[in-house]
Amino acid sequence: MQKEQRLNPEHSGITLGPLPGSEKRYLEKQRNDGLRLRIPYRSVQLSDGQQFPLYDCSGPFTEKGFVDLKRGITVQREEWVQVREGLQPENRRIAAPGSFVRNTRKSTGPCTQMYYAKKGELTPEMEFVALRENLKPDFVLDEVARGRAIIPANINHVELEPMAIGRNFLVKINANIGNSAVRSSIEDEVEKMVWATRWGADTIMDLSTGKDIHETREWIIRNSPVPVGTVPIYQALEKVNGKPEELTWELFRDTLIEQAQQGVDYFTIHAGVLLRFVPTTANRLTGIVSRGGSIMAKWMLAHHQESFLYTRWDEICEIMAAYDVSFSIGDGLRPGSIADANDEAQFAELKVQGELTTRAWDFHVQVMNEGPGHVPMHRIKENMDKQLEWCHEAPFYTLGPLTTDIAPGYDHITSAIGAAMIGWYGTAMLCYVTPKEHLGLPDREDVRQGVVTYKIAAHAADLAKGHPGAQLRDDALSRARFEFRWKDQYNLSLDPERARSFHDETLPGEGADVAHFCSMCGPKFCSMEITHQIRSMADSTAAPEEAMQQKAKEFREMGGEIYVRADSSSQH
Amino acid sequence: MQKEQRLNPEHSGITLGPLPGSEKRYLEKQRNDGLRLRIPYRSVQLSDGQQFPLYDCSGPFTEKGFVDLKRGITVQREEWVQVREGLQPENRRIAAPGSFVRNTRKSTGPCTQMYYAKKGELTPEMEFVALRENLKPDFVLDEVARGRAIIPANINHVELEPMAIGRNFLVKINANIGNSAVRSSIEDEVEKMVWATRWGADTIMDLSTGKDIHETREWIIRNSPVPVGTVPIYQALEKVNGKPEELTWELFRDTLIEQAQQGVDYFTIHAGVLLRFVPTTANRLTGIVSRGGSIMAKWMLAHHQESFLYTRWDEICEIMAAYDVSFSIGDGLRPGSIADANDEAQFAELKVQGELTTRAWDFHVQVMNEGPGHVPMHRIKENMDKQLEWCHEAPFYTLGPLTTDIAPGYDHITSAIGAAMIGWYGTAMLCYVTPKEHLGLPDREDVRQGVVTYKIAAHAADLAKGHPGAQLRDDALSRARFEFRWKDQYNLSLDPERARSFHDETLPGEGADVAHFCSMCGPKFCSMEITHQIRSMADSTAAPEEAMQQKAKEFREMGGEIYVRADSSSQH
Repeated sequence: MQKEQRLNPEHSGITLGPLPGSEKRYLEKQRNDGLRLRIPYRSVQLSDGQQFPLYDCSGPFTEKGFVDLKRGITVQREEWVQVREGLQPENRRIAAPGSFVRNTRKSTGPCTQMYYAKKGELTPEMEFVALRENLKPDFVLDEVARGRAIIPANINHVELEPMAIGRNFLVKINANIGNSAVRSSIEDEVEKMVWATRWGADTIMDLSTGKDIHETREWIIRNSPVPVGTVPIYQALEKVNGKPEELTWELFRDTLIEQAQQGVDYFTIHAGVLLRFVPTTANRLTGIVSRGGSIMAKWMLAHHQESFLYTRWDEICEIMAAYDVSFSIGDGLRPGSIADANDEAQFAELKVQGELTTRAWDFHVQVMNEGPGHVPMHRIKENMDKQLEWCHEAPFYTLGPLTTDIAPGYDHITSAIGAAMIGWYGTAMLCYVTPKEHLGLPDREDVRQGVVTYKIAAHAADLAKGHPGAQLRDDALSRARFEFRWKDQYNLSLDPERARSFHDETLPGEGADVAHFCSMCGPKFCSMEITHQIRSMADSTAAPEEAMQQKAKEFREMGGEIYVRADSSSQH
Repeated sequence: MQKEQRLNPEHSGITLGPLPGSEKRYLEKQRNDGLRLRIPYRSVQLSDGQQFPLYDCSGPFTEKGFVDLKRGITVQREEWVQVREGLQPENRRIAAPGSFVRNTRKSTGPCTQMYYAKKGELTPEMEFVALRENLKPDFVLDEVARGRAIIPANINHVELEPMAIGRNFLVKINANIGNSAVRSSIEDEVEKMVWATRWGADTIMDLSTGKDIHETREWIIRNSPVPVGTVPIYQALEKVNGKPEELTWELFRDTLIEQAQQGVDYFTIHAGVLLRFVPTTANRLTGIVSRGGSIMAKWMLAHHQESFLYTRWDEICEIMAAYDVSFSIGDGLRPGSIADANDEAQFAELKVQGELTTRAWDFHVQVMNEGPGHVPMHRIKENMDKQLEWCHEAPFYTLGPLTTDIAPGYDHITSAIGAAMIGWYGTAMLCYVTPKEHLGLPDREDVRQGVVTYKIAAHAADLAKGHPGAQLRDDALSRARFEFRWKDQYNLSLDPERARSFHDETLPGEGADVAHFCSMCGPKFCSMEITHQIRSMADSTAAPEEAMQQKAKEFREMGGEIYVRADSSSQH
């Protein structure tokens, strides 16, 4: 009874319900093989009666109803996976929507999206992604087949709404959750996922440490509509009480299998940190700053042996292939300061990441590569260029990069600059940084700031890359702004609640929502009227001088009221 | 008596006192001509006994004492200007420090920094700037002479601590203040300047409208250590009760003289908005978004005449030259949305800005050019390239640009991305954008966020441009971070108070300041120890295998404790 109550979403603190002015909808499609796809999107209701569709990754938590965490969310992939397993209809065990499915299936052969793509088989996941991003299904298949995009989708994470990570897709963002040694309840951990995806996180990484790590992850995966990534060495380390030198391949292998069975969609594995690279970090300003990298450096120093992550790579690939867990090959030697950017250690590891990528592809395992870190603007492009070349166009997944070290407390911003740029250059996914980076654990507000900031960086990159359709949202919002449709401006924005509250701080009241001005310039110089005036004038540009003079006279007689929409807090 | 009390800084709400862990100091220099220079800097006291000097533009408000607003701040330039006027020592009227000087002097001949630079005369202002930025005085003189840098320094703003704006100098930032129709007191207006410069604004623009505009400006200038810019057409418009069509050249001219006599250092004048350009904005998504541009568009439409700002340009230049007011040639047709970026109207105006620049230089008037606005990343560089070419390398001064329209409430961030990039490409000064942009008037917290965000953009640009010495601060802060000198990390940061409070939220207490870990990873994987371990290992890389094995054995026997400094909220 106690447990029941704790799990009731009404009492659990899970954030539910749609964002302001919008409704969660699904595009439904039935394939020729009978499988059904339900592609989510958020429909913004504009005041002119139009609907504006937005990409959405928040799952059923932004529908109107409740979500019962203990039952998990909808499992549309269950049937897809069973069909691929070759189960005949009569043998398929289709769980009811909202069943809490604890699968531990393992494929007897390769079952990765890359494997099917190479065979030319268009999976429901590929088609789902194509419809979600308005791309041709064959294009998605080709990108996955050649390793230029991945669809992280563990066969045991049937709750997933598939998404793609690749440089010819929308730029994605990841939010880290669970990186707290102290937590109050499992619901709190699930809420972190719900909260991050509500603001737009395309994937989450569960970096939980401490007790109940397995159980926490189970709850997160069973309720997560987005891919879940982990760093398995963290849990392995917990099993040896935090002593890296006691890690063994067998223990790590078992941890991989445990997490793969649960449904983790991608693993960060720092297999590129080789023994011979460690001394090259000796003269760095900030040494090794990656936790995974440092754990393995410590192990290698203690044993004076090559990293088992590297020597056992083929065995790791076999495990990944049997569950379709994607690699996120870690960058354990990423620079932790401007001074260390693009140095020997970093690029030596990147080359090995490329080698590991090719080897993983031989096992049909999907791969992305992690990247830095702290890099000044003029050295960012080199990272992208080298990654494309050395890692054979596998998707790049970077942390920022931070473009200066001097702003702790504002590192979501120092890094958003670098993230937007590297996204433009071709990075497929950006790992968010919160304002608390380097200082402490992010709270809810920090997570929101971090996610929204990274949605900005990702969208700015989509615009710069010329992603088809990316600018539609900018245009719709700017049109709303120019036409003083305040609510539409809020609702089309990345954070409708904040936009509205900022406006209402200085001009509160329902009336201000329809006012043709705001508090920035006041009513004197704000309106869309000038455009009409200018348009009518433009029609007469070919007219003789007298006509123009006449026009000026008429205009003065009319009262000469032209309103111009002025830029806000800057004004001049 | 009532007034006295109102002006007492202890009661006026003026923010006083040094930033945490630092002290305001001055580099003193006496020139051969006897004139004295006092160059301010902020000295950060590090815990290892070292001092770290930082560029500082906050004036005496960050000294330990009080500042009496009614007396104004120190007037070191008074003597410099009088010497240039040719006054013999016995005739110079040197006001006591802290006198409230109301000069209305006008030069009988050209008195601009550019004029002296062209003559090869190294003014105290140039030398001040050279010492402030650690550059050679002759280099400063050359840059000013050829118009590639300006030193905005009205002969009547003797309270100024001179600074330079040019692409071979540190990137500067501007904060707008006073853009409120409603204000409570003159002290409140001065406090806005004090607050913005405290966080690092290099110049301020006083965009005040409404009553007491002259008196407010007087108080700001008499207390401002940084150049003050205005948009004179705003005050002119007040004089005709907000009716643009009633503006006249004579009224505008008188306003220019009034403000020049007060000591305004630069004027934004939207003289590049020509009648024939107005129709080209007709099909824009967001029309004209510049307030100054729209005022003149309205005037031109009403009269069907060319803008008097353009036709009277030479007369304007004569006024500017007589007080050394610098031009900030406005971009009245800047794009207000991604859709309108880099369009015909915008670039037509930019070409005219170039023509006006050359004409101003003929009068020895210093010039910078204003730039956009809203521009997607891939179209930013074109703005810089065209400005350099068409405006003959005069300094560029941009508002952002914002790299997407979809994030009202976060436009300090959408624009910091563009600002950092265009700063790297060569923009000399960045006009800040606050989180309230497009929504309302910024409050104190918004101003702080806006200024710090733009300091980030400017510094990221300095790093990318390879400005000598820029990286010293990053290195010092990163070294402090790696060595767990928490206080040094805070005090070297752009916002020491925020950095400290973020850290203390999760690990409060004095002990946490010396802890070799923080709340992000906890004590297990945090220390600088690994670098020492790695360094000792690196020494033996040439050793035979046995030695290495021995090293590994020793290491385990020692307890095998290696601490690695892990990256925080991201961790993996």
